[in-house]
Amino acid sequence: MLALAAAGGVDIARFFLALAAILIAAKLLGELAERIGQPAVLGELVAGVLLGGSVLGVVPGTGVPGELIHVLAELGVLLLLFEIGLETDLREMFRVGSASLAVAIVGVVVPFGLGYAYWAYVPHPAVGEGSLVTSAIFVGATLTATSVGITARVLSDLGKMATQEARVIIGAAVIDDVLGLVILSVVSGVAAGAAVSILGVVRTLAVAIGFLVVAVLVGRFLVPRLFDLVVRMRVRYVLLVFAVAFALGLSSLAAVAGSALIIGAVAAGIILSGTNQFDTIEHEVRPVASIFTPIFFVSVGASVDLRLLDPTSPSARGTLLVAGALIVIAILGKLVAGWAAPWVPMRRLVVGVGMVPRGEVGLIFADIGRRSGVLTEEVFGAVLLMVMVTTFVAPPGLKALLGTARPPAG
Amino acid sequence: MLALAAAGGVDIARFFLALAAILIAAKLLGELAERIGQPAVLGELVAGVLLGGSVLGVVPGTGVPGELIHVLAELGVLLLLFEIGLETDLREMFRVGSASLAVAIVGVVVPFGLGYAYWAYVPHPAVGEGSLVTSAIFVGATLTATSVGITARVLSDLGKMATQEARVIIGAAVIDDVLGLVILSVVSGVAAGAAVSILGVVRTLAVAIGFLVVAVLVGRFLVPRLFDLVVRMRVRYVLLVFAVAFALGLSSLAAVAGSALIIGAVAAGIILSGTNQFDTIEHEVRPVASIFTPIFFVSVGASVDLRLLDPTSPSARGTLLVAGALIVIAILGKLVAGWAAPWVPMRRLVVGVGMVPRGEVGLIFADIGRRSGVLTEEVFGAVLLMVMVTTFVAPPGLKALLGTARPPAG
Repeated sequence: MLALAAAGGVDIARFFLALAAILIAAKLLGELAERIGQPAVLGELVAGVLLGGSVLGVVPGTGVPGELIHVLAELGVLLLLFEIGLETDLREMFRVGSASLAVAIVGVVVPFGLGYAYWAYVPHPAVGEGSLVTSAIFVGATLTATSVGITARVLSDLGKMATQEARVIIGAAVIDDVLGLVILSVVSGVAAGAAVSILGVVRTLAVAIGFLVVAVLVGRFLVPRLFDLVVRMRVRYVLLVFAVAFALGLSSLAAVAGSALIIGAVAAGIILSGTNQFDTIEHEVRPVASIFTPIFFVSVGASVDLRLLDPTSPSARGTLLVAGALIVIAILGKLVAGWAAPWVPMRRLVVGVGMVPRGEVGLIFADIGRRSGVLTEEVFGAVLLMVMVTTFVAPPGLKALLGTARPPAG
Repeated sequence: MLALAAAGGVDIARFFLALAAILIAAKLLGELAERIGQPAVLGELVAGVLLGGSVLGVVPGTGVPGELIHVLAELGVLLLLFEIGLETDLREMFRVGSASLAVAIVGVVVPFGLGYAYWAYVPHPAVGEGSLVTSAIFVGATLTATSVGITARVLSDLGKMATQEARVIIGAAVIDDVLGLVILSVVSGVAAGAAVSILGVVRTLAVAIGFLVVAVLVGRFLVPRLFDLVVRMRVRYVLLVFAVAFALGLSSLAAVAGSALIIGAVAAGIILSGTNQFDTIEHEVRPVASIFTPIFFVSVGASVDLRLLDPTSPSARGTLLVAGALIVIAILGKLVAGWAAPWVPMRRLVVGVGMVPRGEVGLIFADIGRRSGVLTEEVFGAVLLMVMVTTFVAPPGLKALLGTARPPAG
């Protein structure tokens, strides 16, 4: 049997070569990061910047190859959050649930409020079409949602997933995602010119929460019985394949139900952590995730355009000015969230720093704003920079607060 | 961080749901096949037929989702052949090299000759544009290349990869691929109206053989030293990620050099089987491969159109008639190849049956023929049927000859 290099439109040989480059660069720079005392994920992000469109152009960004990388990256983040769900102790999560909720709400409300106020009341470059209120809502929205992927990976690299702080952060980041969905639906409506509807906001919120609760409750009851049957099958790696299929299926269901893919992935992990075959599943999922999660982090890095940092260009100077303000708001707004739950004993600075990274959500909001004309290219660039800086400061910050990396597992 | 359901054009939720269905169906029908005493891969092919466009339509066949499935399937076959390369004992392969060569050559020449003769000298339905010679070359070509993926998977399912027969078959199938490349270049030239050039044939052959020899010789010398450095890195799963990246990279290189992707994948496996970290790599690659190889077999099954089997339709009857002739030629032409190397002691019927399955190569040839107008839809359908039947008869045939399946490894 013979596989053609260019069967069906995509140049598969070229695509696989890019994939090989992504994997090797991710590991080499991840190693470099660890050697200089930083978490590996920081190196993977830098690898992405280097391989991205503004430097080497190795990571496909457009057309079908771009879509392919995007889907593989989504598979990577899905597997990462599935692993996180597997490692989640539900009772521990409930114990810190009130703290997570408080951290999430403060961490969304404060940056949104500060961002809105900055845009509405402080002088800054022109904001494109639409009213000042509309663009201020957009700027505020881009500042809200924590990238649980980055933080979870750092905590995992540092071997700190079982700490009180990690539980609060992961819980808050998942709640953040639910709030992010609500904000997204509001923002999309605003971009389309619609009025903000309280009913719509409540409905989005109810769907996301309802999905998580029903999935975990029903799943924890039914799925362990199902997997007791699966384990009696004889075909190779049947547990692993069913577990991954379950994560894929529940993620899709979450999205179809109007919630987020990754909420389904976390739920799938939490549900499977209650099965008798939990150890085998976790042991076998790890190598699969280890291939795909670097693709996610490299592609996040690759979306950064280094030309935005050139201080000799006048448009870049405006962008840098706005970006500076957004960065300060983004960091302060999440740091204070660490102090949102005074009734729970925890290292509040660790929680605050853990909530700082913004990932693709901010980029998605900014992209909707740009395409609808509400945000100018400069503001879009500033949001990109904010996402980049918050993503890059959190890993060394957490590392400095939490100490040395654990010994390698692979 | 929040992953959108439909970011960037592809409906990721829908795609992941299809993927989940593919994985679950593959394992359920694989299990069913094993329970009735057949190899699991047969069940995965049937799962593909059921999920394919002619029945349930779950497997995406067109557009970007179709490309995605195609790339994931290629990744699956690449990982499968990489695993096969890892399990290959090079000395043992060389010991049976002359037998493999003889089996490959007879198994290509006899079906090609019989196919050509049938088409040129026996009455049959109309053959579209072009001369009878051109279409006869096409029909002959579709009958030549063995699908090493199917046979290797069956041998692996049966726990017979370490037998004399398996070595001869795998070696012959790889050589077959090299010959397939030569035939493909000839056939493509014929479709474009070019004369067959001896120089072109020799060049294609030399590139493919040269690549394999140089890659393995240089690789066996350099790569073990490289991996002794890689193993000293501290980041997680660094060996696995480098091994997969090496397989992807060498496969691309093979394709760019004018050879086939999967020749690169086999070569990568053979090279890494000489490293000191061989055990860890094999242990960690398996779960990754177990997720992706079923996608390949399901997508092969999904390309089968069951409507071609409807005997009440007149066009289907013509197709069935031609298909019957091609099937007889395809099976007999490869069975005799088992007797091509009388100087090597082996079970010749096992080797013959092992060479019978035709996979996507036949489909690729037929597709080129159809698109260039050399083959009619009926003949294309007949080739599809031939590929399907040869693919489906080999697993139970080998199983009957080789005995019981091994206990499950997962």
